[in-house]
Amino acid sequence: MLLQPERMRAYAERVADLIGEERYAEAAREATNLSHARVAEILMEDAPRRAVVPFLERWGRDRAALTLAELPDEFAAELVAEADRERATDWLAGMPTDVAADIVAELDGDTAEPLLADLPAASRASVQRLSRYEEDSAGAWMSPYFVAVPLDKSVGEVIEALRAAPHRHANTAYVYVVDEQQRLVGVVSLRELMLSPATLPVRRLMKRDILVARTGDNAAEAADRTYTRGLKMLPVVTEADALVGVLTMEDALELLSEQLADELSGIGATSREESFFTPPWRAIQLRLPWMAANVFLNLAAVSIISAFEATLAQVAILAAFLPMITDMGGNVGIQALSVSIRSIALGEVRLRDYWQAVRKELAIGVVNGLALGALFGVIAYAMEANALLGGIAGAALAVNVLVAGVVGGTIPFFIRRIGLDPAMLTGPILTTVTDITGVSIYLGLASLVLAGLVA
Amino acid sequence: MLLQPERMRAYAERVADLIGEERYAEAAREATNLSHARVAEILMEDAPRRAVVPFLERWGRDRAALTLAELPDEFAAELVAEADRERATDWLAGMPTDVAADIVAELDGDTAEPLLADLPAASRASVQRLSRYEEDSAGAWMSPYFVAVPLDKSVGEVIEALRAAPHRHANTAYVYVVDEQQRLVGVVSLRELMLSPATLPVRRLMKRDILVARTGDNAAEAADRTYTRGLKMLPVVTEADALVGVLTMEDALELLSEQLADELSGIGATSREESFFTPPWRAIQLRLPWMAANVFLNLAAVSIISAFEATLAQVAILAAFLPMITDMGGNVGIQALSVSIRSIALGEVRLRDYWQAVRKELAIGVVNGLALGALFGVIAYAMEANALLGGIAGAALAVNVLVAGVVGGTIPFFIRRIGLDPAMLTGPILTTVTDITGVSIYLGLASLVLAGLVA
Repeated sequence: MLLQPERMRAYAERVADLIGEERYAEAAREATNLSHARVAEILMEDAPRRAVVPFLERWGRDRAALTLAELPDEFAAELVAEADRERATDWLAGMPTDVAADIVAELDGDTAEPLLADLPAASRASVQRLSRYEEDSAGAWMSPYFVAVPLDKSVGEVIEALRAAPHRHANTAYVYVVDEQQRLVGVVSLRELMLSPATLPVRRLMKRDILVARTGDNAAEAADRTYTRGLKMLPVVTEADALVGVLTMEDALELLSEQLADELSGIGATSREESFFTPPWRAIQLRLPWMAANVFLNLAAVSIISAFEATLAQVAILAAFLPMITDMGGNVGIQALSVSIRSIALGEVRLRDYWQAVRKELAIGVVNGLALGALFGVIAYAMEANALLGGIAGAALAVNVLVAGVVGGTIPFFIRRIGLDPAMLTGPILTTVTDITGVSIYLGLASLVLAGLVA
Repeated sequence: MLLQPERMRAYAERVADLIGEERYAEAAREATNLSHARVAEILMEDAPRRAVVPFLERWGRDRAALTLAELPDEFAAELVAEADRERATDWLAGMPTDVAADIVAELDGDTAEPLLADLPAASRASVQRLSRYEEDSAGAWMSPYFVAVPLDKSVGEVIEALRAAPHRHANTAYVYVVDEQQRLVGVVSLRELMLSPATLPVRRLMKRDILVARTGDNAAEAADRTYTRGLKMLPVVTEADALVGVLTMEDALELLSEQLADELSGIGATSREESFFTPPWRAIQLRLPWMAANVFLNLAAVSIISAFEATLAQVAILAAFLPMITDMGGNVGIQALSVSIRSIALGEVRLRDYWQAVRKELAIGVVNGLALGALFGVIAYAMEANALLGGIAGAALAVNVLVAGVVGGTIPFFIRRIGLDPAMLTGPILTTVTDITGVSIYLGLASLVLAGLVA
């Protein structure tokens, strides 16, 4: 039977409805047709919050554990903390220990200690070992499930080892070959094993040049290597070359998604560290300094306007269009900024092509500036019945749109060319530049033709 | 030999240097130690643009073809158009036909026609077949390389078929089983094949419940299924269930990255369609309508300020702080917006938790509002030596920061809860709301205490 999207969706909806109606036993029966990831999605998106733990409690230890493993760590930790202690220990023991380590890391110490103490000794040791690696390292992200065989085995013996290995270990694309010190010395693919005679020594079959990551390497970089090489998994070794884990393609996908989101966060002046689950006091610490810096950046525009106080005193209505001019500049600039940051983050564009970016934004800016300036000029004239004011407002907006597009579209190229990442202040700096140009041109022009405006 | 990052980087740097010095033959020799993806990266990031085609021409037909296949389609198309016709045809013929189809789609008709005509008949047919699928469909993204065997084979015969299959086809994690009409009826993993007796009929081994995508299905949704199920590849079938291709985990990663970037683009009022390579005239069409809409959104703030013309005429310096108040509101709002859009896009947060988002942003907003308001109030007082003006400006900023944070942080939840995607206008609508609240409070307070300000 081919499982098409419609069929899977029908199952999922039925499960979600049953959970909502607190008919947990029936929900569990239907849910066996769904993957753990899909059940996790239902718990995230559709199930009422209060029904999540009761459903998991009735869903069997192993299934509940594997479903929890598919949830975001923070949410899984909440659920583990809510369940009773025995159940929570069962769940942690039933999931891959690398995931258990991530979830335990999200719990506060008082909740985590007793749960860890109750874990079977082997799981506890593995969780504790994995918790020792630094947060963004390959060691912290690796899975401890792989198949390694000694150098002196034959192909037939390796196949026997695969047969005997627990399923979680054996669900692999490669078998690694290690020496007596557990040092990684070779790798063979399942395909090569399958196509080779059983008596062939594995040392004659194995590939000896192996791309690896060290436990201390940056996990996102290791993920990038896994992906660009098209590997199904990347072995992770200690400084002494001992094989201790693997980074899978799924890990790579998760890591690269986070990295992409980080690179795009430059648009919104957001710290890479902040997520929805960051506690408010920490979010304040992360956001406040940038916004305080922004206050000082904005003083430039304030000073310029202050310098034109005399003009404003004579033609107060000039003030009405100030926010329009600065706001449009900011929005147009951030629009162009987004396109560039996105293309750079997705690796679509050569950083050397920034002159092309300048030319493109110039062309767009001239047309959009003229169009928006004309629109705004007409509106300003209509509102105030003052053609000169309309003309000045339109002209200032036109120039500001052009400047904002060019600056916004090219900033990320320059920042990356000098080796930095577009950072939290990119957006605020951009709006400062557009505020200054917009306000200067607008009030400057107004002062030049002041006599005409007052008349 | 373990290939650690440092070693690979040293190779890459040497290759980049040699290409830069136009020593193409030596560069090609060194580059054989690198993956095609890594060489592609060097051509994107490090090589001078003029050196790219000459290097590829000296690098051998197949290697050049597979390196081009790793480049973004737009850049690869540029290079193909630059090379002479014979070479370009060789390259297209040497790469996977699904990639060739993507590159041909980026070429203009006059360049593409003769190249297609020169392709070997089989490649041309495959490219043309793949080009017929809609842009974002699973059909357009699928790879035509997989191994399928008839129902009546034994395990031993399937292994023989794998041995005989061309490498590009056989580099697979699964073997598919099809009936006489090429309809997909089963799947076996390499591991199951390896662990089973050679005489076992494959129909007794195969799994019959198979997750599939239809050629017309949305490719990003299919990718999401591939990833959440932890599949190494997802079979793609026609309406008649005939197996025509597979979506690999690498395809899934690329698709999900683009989707994530799309979801985050709501922050910058950017169309999902626009990339660096969008021609200016098209970018204008995409951006102008939204910015014109933004002009009208901004009229709300303009009207409010106009209503306070009398107040402004008496205390012109009030105008100096208008852009500061609106700009801070916009930046704080977009900061909170980014955090929420990011957490939603990464699937970290339950959409049902928006009350939690409101509470969090309220807490942050009260503290940040008070802090930034106080800072700004002191600065305004220092600049104008007017305590009342400083107080008003600070109070308006404080309230505006609070409102901006709460609105920005919660908008994406409400939009997603009613089933929409955060769209291009999210940012502009947010800044409109913050402009209106900021300006009203600021000028409203100023009017109330006008006598004190004039004095």
